[in-house]
Amino acid sequence: MSQPNIALIGLGLIGSSLGHALKKNKLAAHISGYARSAATRDKALDLGFVDSVHDTAAEAVIDADIVFFNTPLSVIKQLAEEIVPGLKDNAILTDVGSVKAGVLKELTPLLEGRVHFVPGHPIAGTEQSGPEAGFAELFEGRWCILTPDENTSLIAVEEITKLWRGMGSEVTFMEADHHDLVLAITSHLPHLIAYNIVGTAAQLENDTRSEVIKYSASGFRDFTRIASSDPIMWRDIFLANKDAVLEMLGRFSEDLTALQAAIRRGDARYLEDVFTKTRGIRQSIIDAGQDTDSPNFGRDK
Amino acid sequence: MSQPNIALIGLGLIGSSLGHALKKNKLAAHISGYARSAATRDKALDLGFVDSVHDTAAEAVIDADIVFFNTPLSVIKQLAEEIVPGLKDNAILTDVGSVKAGVLKELTPLLEGRVHFVPGHPIAGTEQSGPEAGFAELFEGRWCILTPDENTSLIAVEEITKLWRGMGSEVTFMEADHHDLVLAITSHLPHLIAYNIVGTAAQLENDTRSEVIKYSASGFRDFTRIASSDPIMWRDIFLANKDAVLEMLGRFSEDLTALQAAIRRGDARYLEDVFTKTRGIRQSIIDAGQDTDSPNFGRDK
Repeated sequence: MSQPNIALIGLGLIGSSLGHALKKNKLAAHISGYARSAATRDKALDLGFVDSVHDTAAEAVIDADIVFFNTPLSVIKQLAEEIVPGLKDNAILTDVGSVKAGVLKELTPLLEGRVHFVPGHPIAGTEQSGPEAGFAELFEGRWCILTPDENTSLIAVEEITKLWRGMGSEVTFMEADHHDLVLAITSHLPHLIAYNIVGTAAQLENDTRSEVIKYSASGFRDFTRIASSDPIMWRDIFLANKDAVLEMLGRFSEDLTALQAAIRRGDARYLEDVFTKTRGIRQSIIDAGQDTDSPNFGRDK
Repeated sequence: MSQPNIALIGLGLIGSSLGHALKKNKLAAHISGYARSAATRDKALDLGFVDSVHDTAAEAVIDADIVFFNTPLSVIKQLAEEIVPGLKDNAILTDVGSVKAGVLKELTPLLEGRVHFVPGHPIAGTEQSGPEAGFAELFEGRWCILTPDENTSLIAVEEITKLWRGMGSEVTFMEADHHDLVLAITSHLPHLIAYNIVGTAAQLENDTRSEVIKYSASGFRDFTRIASSDPIMWRDIFLANKDAVLEMLGRFSEDLTALQAAIRRGDARYLEDVFTKTRGIRQSIIDAGQDTDSPNFGRDK
């Protein structure tokens, strides 16, 4: 398979970035697209990151060798039921969802023993949504985590790996459950906290009619940016990764209670110790090359 | 007072930015500087944002018309005790601390009825620290909140207002207690949460020997940046604004418990509602001009 036909199901931030990146790197013979909304489909064709759009997902995948699901998690199973019967033998399904254990369990029984599924998750994104938000460089220098299990076709895994590398990503492999635990603390919980604090501040502004938002300082501004991410996508993430998120939330709350107690009793040393430790962690991330404008990988340096 | 002599007590991020900004905008006849560490004093002189440095705060302020405290909150009172006896009559003290009610109470009895104090707080900063972190544009297009009380000299308030405006800030006035409440939710609590989640993640990485940090996604990266702010400064902020921070932390925890319950019971609608509401708040901040690379004020547009 040198130049596969690729179908993009879902044409939002990730779907449109995939289209742009596949075209920029000449990785697809043809890119077909499907989105639920006709306006989104028209916009995608206008922007040129797909070669064709289709009124149904089933039509979009007829000639596809590889199909990317770029939708909220809650609709993937139903879409798979719609498209699998019309797929070529040995077509490869893959996804970009932020929770991996559930989707593997959901899709495996639907594959009819003749279609492959390679679960994937590019660690890349912005707080923007929609077909106009995408850009070809979104995945460059970023990790893409694939979570195949022992039944996944190695050839399918290789094809998907090749595509992500072609778009500039560094591919790594993890067990789905481990992925979900790691992402619960590094991505899901931070988003939950950001949504929560912005909600608390908004309520305070209403209650006190004071100008909370107007004087927002840097900490809060960052939180509002995170908390402006797509609500449906994040709703589905928390529902799909419930156990790991609740586990991490438990740990977070225990630690926060300890900080709260330290503030209450005026324990300067405890506060200083905690704040000093966390400062070092920032440096590890910069060293790993995951917080630069031109991202690259620490280990390549 | 057309070109005052200005003394900077504390030469870190804010002190060095003040020096650069005062020089750039030609607002001082002479800028003297004091920092506890000799290395910092030497660096300040090297970088040229002060005209002279001194081994003690008392020496640095001898000829000063205006003195800025740019130190952690916990040392301001002691420094004031050291310098006030040697100050000119009608000299003006001001500060840049993130908590305002305490410092006003602490300094008022020390002023000998012949020196003025104007409490101030520029809503500007970065996560960097030290004399090399400052730059002249830090305050441009940012709010500076002054919190004088009914006993503060109006002439002194005008002098300080003029300086901040000269450095490009928009000056506004608030009661000290109200300032501390607003900042507790927009700045102090976000920092506490960021410190906490980064600490929780580090502990998890230790416990599980898994690569939590390596795959840090955007949410977490933002938190680590916030959590790399100066530990001593933030320790003092939480101790000084204890009541308001504990009040806001209580509200935050109640809201978080509700979100946690919604995740546990799989309440998709509740999650979607919360996440949709917070998205709108982001827009208010962008509209207020407080989250752009070239900041400006919404009301000027």
